[in-house]
Amino acid sequence: MIMPAPFYPGSPKTPSDKVKLTREEFITALTQLGKERYHSLHPFHKLLHSGKLSFEQVQAWALNRFYYQWSIPRKDLTLMARMNDVDIRVEWRSRVIDHEGDIDGQGGIKRYLQLCERLNLDIDYVKSCEGLLPASRFAVDAYVNFVGSRSLLEAVASSLTEIYAPAIHAERISGLSKHYEWADDYALAYFKKRIGQARKDVEFGREWVINNAITRDDQNAVLNAVKFKTEVLWAQLDALYYAYVDPGFIPPGAFIPKGFNGKKWAE
Amino acid sequence: MIMPAPFYPGSPKTPSDKVKLTREEFITALTQLGKERYHSLHPFHKLLHSGKLSFEQVQAWALNRFYYQWSIPRKDLTLMARMNDVDIRVEWRSRVIDHEGDIDGQGGIKRYLQLCERLNLDIDYVKSCEGLLPASRFAVDAYVNFVGSRSLLEAVASSLTEIYAPAIHAERISGLSKHYEWADDYALAYFKKRIGQARKDVEFGREWVINNAITRDDQNAVLNAVKFKTEVLWAQLDALYYAYVDPGFIPPGAFIPKGFNGKKWAE
Repeated sequence: MIMPAPFYPGSPKTPSDKVKLTREEFITALTQLGKERYHSLHPFHKLLHSGKLSFEQVQAWALNRFYYQWSIPRKDLTLMARMNDVDIRVEWRSRVIDHEGDIDGQGGIKRYLQLCERLNLDIDYVKSCEGLLPASRFAVDAYVNFVGSRSLLEAVASSLTEIYAPAIHAERISGLSKHYEWADDYALAYFKKRIGQARKDVEFGREWVINNAITRDDQNAVLNAVKFKTEVLWAQLDALYYAYVDPGFIPPGAFIPKGFNGKKWAE
Repeated sequence: MIMPAPFYPGSPKTPSDKVKLTREEFITALTQLGKERYHSLHPFHKLLHSGKLSFEQVQAWALNRFYYQWSIPRKDLTLMARMNDVDIRVEWRSRVIDHEGDIDGQGGIKRYLQLCERLNLDIDYVKSCEGLLPASRFAVDAYVNFVGSRSLLEAVASSLTEIYAPAIHAERISGLSKHYEWADDYALAYFKKRIGQARKDVEFGREWVINNAITRDDQNAVLNAVKFKTEVLWAQLDALYYAYVDPGFIPPGAFIPKGFNGKKWAE
């Protein structure tokens, strides 16, 4: 008896016979995804933004988030390297410059490191990525790989979670400033600058995706790409919550904050 | 002022000036890694093997582990496609056959699905991978990508966690049979068969790696590859523990066992 291995991922897809969504329906579907799955809903963010995390727990967040922050331009460069159209590449280039800076050295990564500095993290240790939760690395790498291997439409679509980002940045800035002593302008420079920066990108990316999703199957692929990206963001917070809040089992080799009262899994 | 982005991953490595480990020291270092980081130590496995998980929690484990199980031959094929030496490819081929079966249809994946069947999981749902924790997918995909992108030495080395596997298989078989009514020969067929199968592979892989790690840097690369693999295994259990044991926050879209009393993160 021949028992073939299941085809990845599941059975071959048959073309959808459903009708294409109108522009408005498509935008509504994108918005809805954010309302249901964006990481602003995550319990870890709720604790962070309402001042309920200890200094050490915020350190763990900032340290792990660095890898995401730091990988975003790698992701964008991966994507740009796959674009045939120079005009889109040029349009996309500003994202890389926003994060990496120009010869003035004022990129987002540097501003993000100001947060790490205020949190008394050793900057070389942060940059070494040695104390990362492996789950942070796996999630972020999944994002870079997604952009390098999926269709251009899906790769661009995966950035569309930035539609939802301004609200969470605003919530973060006000929540952190209100509740934590260390959260001054220097520490929050990355998030403050980001609110204005992302707007242009959001607009361009959204319009490009809407115009290039020709069929209903394309539209579904877009929605699935955005869903994938929400999972990338969500999984990072799951891992932080697990390791540094509850149950507090820090995986072997990951950052152990000074005097942290997490439980030790091995006992 | 020029502020270059940090080089990935951290600074460029300088060759180690340390002396190469002897065969015995190298084997000891490999063994030690297992004692410190193999997932047999993970609290989720301790609960599983001592009968402390509910039927629904075991369902979640089996469902998520399926993706790992199912990806192993993809991983081995990725690796084989990068091997120049036909003799090693032929040697490695039996791993794929062990999991996928031959025309008799009796591969490990099919035996693994017997476990899912005994656990009353819908087999089409399991195969669809739709209810996976995203963290399971990210971790397993990281493994496949590692094998596709690192040096052949590192790629082969990452399979060496199988050195530690027979003990956990034995512990699992006896623990599950003792504590769970559903855990009969049919359900445990995969693990029972696996104990005998892996032995030959372990021997070959270990010897190949020892002989091909020429310098101390090679040996360090091997140890790091094994460490990476322990993280892949460990992270999967972290995610299961978080979602289905404590705090019990199931991420959006992931499998929700019938009548499961997990907390809802969104409330």
